[in-house]
Amino acid sequence: MRPVLTLLACDLFNGSILKALNPAIGIEMFHNFTLMHDDIMDKAPLRRGKPTVHEQWNESSAILSGDMMLIEAYKLMMDVDEKLLRPVLEIFNETAKGVCEGQQIDMNFEQLEGVSVSEYKEMIRLKTAVLLGGSMKIGALIGGAAPDHADLLYGFGVNLGIAFQLQDDILDVYGDPDKFGKQVGGDIRANKKTFLLIQALETAEGLDKEELNYWVNQENADPETKVNAVTTIYSRLGIRSLAEEEMNNYAEKALQALESVPVDIEKKERLRGFAEQLLVREN
Amino acid sequence: MRPVLTLLACDLFNGSILKALNPAIGIEMFHNFTLMHDDIMDKAPLRRGKPTVHEQWNESSAILSGDMMLIEAYKLMMDVDEKLLRPVLEIFNETAKGVCEGQQIDMNFEQLEGVSVSEYKEMIRLKTAVLLGGSMKIGALIGGAAPDHADLLYGFGVNLGIAFQLQDDILDVYGDPDKFGKQVGGDIRANKKTFLLIQALETAEGLDKEELNYWVNQENADPETKVNAVTTIYSRLGIRSLAEEEMNNYAEKALQALESVPVDIEKKERLRGFAEQLLVREN
Repeated sequence: MRPVLTLLACDLFNGSILKALNPAIGIEMFHNFTLMHDDIMDKAPLRRGKPTVHEQWNESSAILSGDMMLIEAYKLMMDVDEKLLRPVLEIFNETAKGVCEGQQIDMNFEQLEGVSVSEYKEMIRLKTAVLLGGSMKIGALIGGAAPDHADLLYGFGVNLGIAFQLQDDILDVYGDPDKFGKQVGGDIRANKKTFLLIQALETAEGLDKEELNYWVNQENADPETKVNAVTTIYSRLGIRSLAEEEMNNYAEKALQALESVPVDIEKKERLRGFAEQLLVREN
Repeated sequence: MRPVLTLLACDLFNGSILKALNPAIGIEMFHNFTLMHDDIMDKAPLRRGKPTVHEQWNESSAILSGDMMLIEAYKLMMDVDEKLLRPVLEIFNETAKGVCEGQQIDMNFEQLEGVSVSEYKEMIRLKTAVLLGGSMKIGALIGGAAPDHADLLYGFGVNLGIAFQLQDDILDVYGDPDKFGKQVGGDIRANKKTFLLIQALETAEGLDKEELNYWVNQENADPETKVNAVTTIYSRLGIRSLAEEEMNNYAEKALQALESVPVDIEKKERLRGFAEQLLVREN
């Protein structure tokens, strides 16, 4: 998805996508570096259905290979015209720092009691969304966009990224089990602090709050009972609508940013189509 | 040591060392990133007498903090004049890749039976020496050196780095216990593949070879007996002289590279002094 966004952003300004190819690969290399290191931290056994690097080989190799991929990402990112070298690398630096910071905040959340909705949104902005924004801004600059227009693409990417992550949280509970690739309710089983749980904890009062807290602190509950109970509370509190509203707000902001870009409307159709496709997925 | 080499190399060409300050800090930041990740891989409890980051906090924080420091190193490295941006980053990329590759090769050595002297020297060139070379080449370019002269500084740094590492191996066995900060014979106790051990395994024949192999494969030997026995074999084989000769060859190459740099001889005195000080240390 990310390198495609880089190429589409480049194409939007009539740039040659061949010029954006290596930086786009750099974005994907960077993304995979973060996955490789995240998988160590999460002790994840599988990635894309295959053993993770630290499982297949060992942790040291996964740390070092990730480091190498980050360096390789910089090398690929440097394959731009001379006048773009500094601007592109500055965006890449800020993006990379944001993603690492978001990962650290996400890990901190696991130890924290009270995470607010706004703290959660800031975390997903950093961990997920800035990389989409950075991918598009870099593509736009390579395509010849003026800085202002590249910023619009950044806004498109970041807001799309937040909407995308919110949708991920919604699908975990309300996804069609036949189409959703993962186990429905996985986040609830794992007590994961998603937008839905955090919003519910902020909204709930009285008995609802007591019941929600009960389930969150139940380590040994029957998983299915727990998922059903928490989903019922979400329904009573109207959490699904709140989450969808929030998601639609960000999707709307993303599309507005795209609309403001002064290029032919037909040129934007592909990007709009790509965004809409991302946000109606059921898996 | 490394950032000082950057500043000295800059000064050699009459460059303003203020211009080299942030890149020099970037070099040190990069070096500390490698230490932080190496300490995880080596499960090291202490660094500079204090708990390592993964000990004091946790492994995930040490992985992520290292990642952040690598990104920060790139940011600092970018604080150079426009025309130097690409050359400096290209040197930095190659240096960073070399260091990571050297660390991987060093880890591979632990699992390997037969490591040759030339493989060992290639490993220390990558793991230790290229960073000294890179530090100096970057400093030289910032100081205004012509590419050829910057290459001489690179040669100076790399050869100095190899000599420095060989000295480290020698000091581990023959260092003055009162001056050497670490336990003398630590490498022998840990069966570490140093220049001395590899050279001895290549040189030894007959009974010497048998005896050396016996000690290397002795996991539960009394440490002091083992250190004494291996040191005695080293003496019989003349390993200390071989190692010192090798070290002096690299030191000589380093100083020759420095001599060829066409700047006033007085300007070079500081760098020569620094190099000599590094190579007569007893700790």
